[in-house]
Amino acid sequence: MMPRIDAVDFFYASMPEITDEADGSQDALLVRVVAGDHVGWGECEASPLTSIAAFVAPASHGVCQPVSASVLGEHVDGQADIARIAALVARNSMDLLQAPHTFSGIEMALWDLLGRIREEPVWRLLGYTAAHAKTPYASMLFGRTPDETIAQGRSALERGFRAVKFGWGAFGAGTVAADIDHLHAAREAVGPDGILLVDAGQIWGEDVDAAAARVDALQDVRATWLEEPFHAEAYAAHAQLASLAATLRIAGGEGAHNVRMARNLIDYGGVGFVQVDTGRIGGIGAAKRVADYAELRDVTYVNHTFTSHLALSASLQPYAGLADHRICEYPAHPKRLAEDITRTHLVPDQDGLVHVPDAPGLGVDVDLAAVHPYLRDVEITVDGDTVFVSPEMVRP
Amino acid sequence: MMPRIDAVDFFYASMPEITDEADGSQDALLVRVVAGDHVGWGECEASPLTSIAAFVAPASHGVCQPVSASVLGEHVDGQADIARIAALVARNSMDLLQAPHTFSGIEMALWDLLGRIREEPVWRLLGYTAAHAKTPYASMLFGRTPDETIAQGRSALERGFRAVKFGWGAFGAGTVAADIDHLHAAREAVGPDGILLVDAGQIWGEDVDAAAARVDALQDVRATWLEEPFHAEAYAAHAQLASLAATLRIAGGEGAHNVRMARNLIDYGGVGFVQVDTGRIGGIGAAKRVADYAELRDVTYVNHTFTSHLALSASLQPYAGLADHRICEYPAHPKRLAEDITRTHLVPDQDGLVHVPDAPGLGVDVDLAAVHPYLRDVEITVDGDTVFVSPEMVRP
Repeated sequence: MMPRIDAVDFFYASMPEITDEADGSQDALLVRVVAGDHVGWGECEASPLTSIAAFVAPASHGVCQPVSASVLGEHVDGQADIARIAALVARNSMDLLQAPHTFSGIEMALWDLLGRIREEPVWRLLGYTAAHAKTPYASMLFGRTPDETIAQGRSALERGFRAVKFGWGAFGAGTVAADIDHLHAAREAVGPDGILLVDAGQIWGEDVDAAAARVDALQDVRATWLEEPFHAEAYAAHAQLASLAATLRIAGGEGAHNVRMARNLIDYGGVGFVQVDTGRIGGIGAAKRVADYAELRDVTYVNHTFTSHLALSASLQPYAGLADHRICEYPAHPKRLAEDITRTHLVPDQDGLVHVPDAPGLGVDVDLAAVHPYLRDVEITVDGDTVFVSPEMVRP
Repeated sequence: MMPRIDAVDFFYASMPEITDEADGSQDALLVRVVAGDHVGWGECEASPLTSIAAFVAPASHGVCQPVSASVLGEHVDGQADIARIAALVARNSMDLLQAPHTFSGIEMALWDLLGRIREEPVWRLLGYTAAHAKTPYASMLFGRTPDETIAQGRSALERGFRAVKFGWGAFGAGTVAADIDHLHAAREAVGPDGILLVDAGQIWGEDVDAAAARVDALQDVRATWLEEPFHAEAYAAHAQLASLAATLRIAGGEGAHNVRMARNLIDYGGVGFVQVDTGRIGGIGAAKRVADYAELRDVTYVNHTFTSHLALSASLQPYAGLADHRICEYPAHPKRLAEDITRTHLVPDQDGLVHVPDAPGLGVDVDLAAVHPYLRDVEITVDGDTVFVSPEMVRP
């Protein structure tokens, strides 16, 4: 009775128009894994067409095989099988760079499928005995002016958020003085007790001085963390900045596409918060290994999630049982698509806390009918053979 | 008179059958960049279909744009423009993991194009005043038996190679005793004066003890380096192994898909040789930055090349002027496709040395007519619109 993976279906959905905003909720690549009578759902982060190609591409050589080669036909009888399949992908797709994005969605779907078979939430399959509620933070762009930043932050507070992250926009690209004004506006917006987080979106590359020039102001406004000041692998720059800060901690990790990259950011970059995108790092199993390591190294684990509540649930499972890792990223202003993907939503309770679902698997139901209007119809042929075509329902 | 990039054409070629060997010469993704009347050629490493998708994929958001968005229409008036375009790709495709593979081939083609306009070899554009001949090593798989290993090594010596690298096959996966037999066979094959290199192909993951159990034997047979004992980003494991070795040095770097990853392997992994694949790290400019850093840190730079002589020339340019960095990887047993890609071949001279071409650009001519029989016909449609179709000559 060991189910085998019979099919992996990719649903590429997007808003009618994609803007240049740093808003990752504008499209989605949903993954449905079918094994016998069982179904599970996951979501890959970023560039749906490229991630589909990584599943169906003709092999280049022994360790540059498509993700499909390590997934289709494999048994999924338990957690160990998911780890085994992950190791197969890592080996057989070693030279296929996009593979971790593609596999992340598949891996989530395997946990969802297994949880539904076992009638257990994924966090319990991961070995946690309890799931602790998290304090969600609302991610928003800095306003064009400090007044806009204040208005945006206040709107988040009015919706019940006690933590707000501002980022991107013009922050870091202009003068230090302009950034200081925005930072004070941000603190004013969230009030004296609000948790204030700041995201620089890698704006300073490896320029430690540019980042250091903002540290005093960040500490004056009691920012909890400064996120991604530098390129994801610029560890020495992260460590230098961390050593210059007294109360401010450095955060990063969303760029990690395997466990080792996240660990390296902890070991060499000296981050205080490690932010893991379950849709990119290789899925829930990989993210859980980072959470275990973070716990060991007194670093706080945080999810990175900007899309649907399917992705949100998957991103909370890896640290659901870690009571001291309290903050979670919450898609506060997603595009309509991201809301429509699931029937289930992880709505904050009256205390403003988000609960990881107790229901089997990832505990959220995908609403494929609601996604239908957003679906994009992809076809890929090689030498006249169709190697990928969007699942039937996409076509009129 | 500043040429703009009018077109980027991808030619996906492969052998009729792709085997599971770790032989990267079984397929190729050639890139032709056209700017006004000028043309340049490059080659991307690995998974042609996925790398094409990264060029044409619909944007996901502001920093997950396809590579095309940062390339088409841009000026290429000089070296600074190539660096500027590289920075655009890094920013605009930050969340598109496959992008560095795609861009690497384009970047090479831009150097080739610029060199042809200037009538200068690329190494001179990079600031070198001389190009030093390199000692090529033949890469081969360990035999199934020690006798096979001896026979393979001898065939390389008969062809004039003074350096041989053995790797992959069963090495590292079986017993230490079996590996020791293979290592002694390898030394016997190359003779007392031959340069012997060993490639473990990441076989030990992060298991330092497994690798350490082979160090004495590697030193007994006077192996110059042990390559990729561990996963590419397992820096602590690399450093531990390096500290256990006396004469043996650790090599790695082919997995680096940006400059920082290669630098980190030097800084945290303690490698003695850094091996850079110009078709993966972001192209010639990125590889040159690694060569500069290696020189500074007393680490020896080596190219990683397994495919055509177009890729070989591109991989030699970044360290052509570094006289003390003498060894180069040379595709000793490529598939016929890899030989047919170029009319020009970098044939070792009577002393067995390989010379970086003196001719303008990359100094090799692509033979598109010879490639024709290998071309694969790809078409990608999104919502019925063709976003990619193989260049016209692919079709009958």
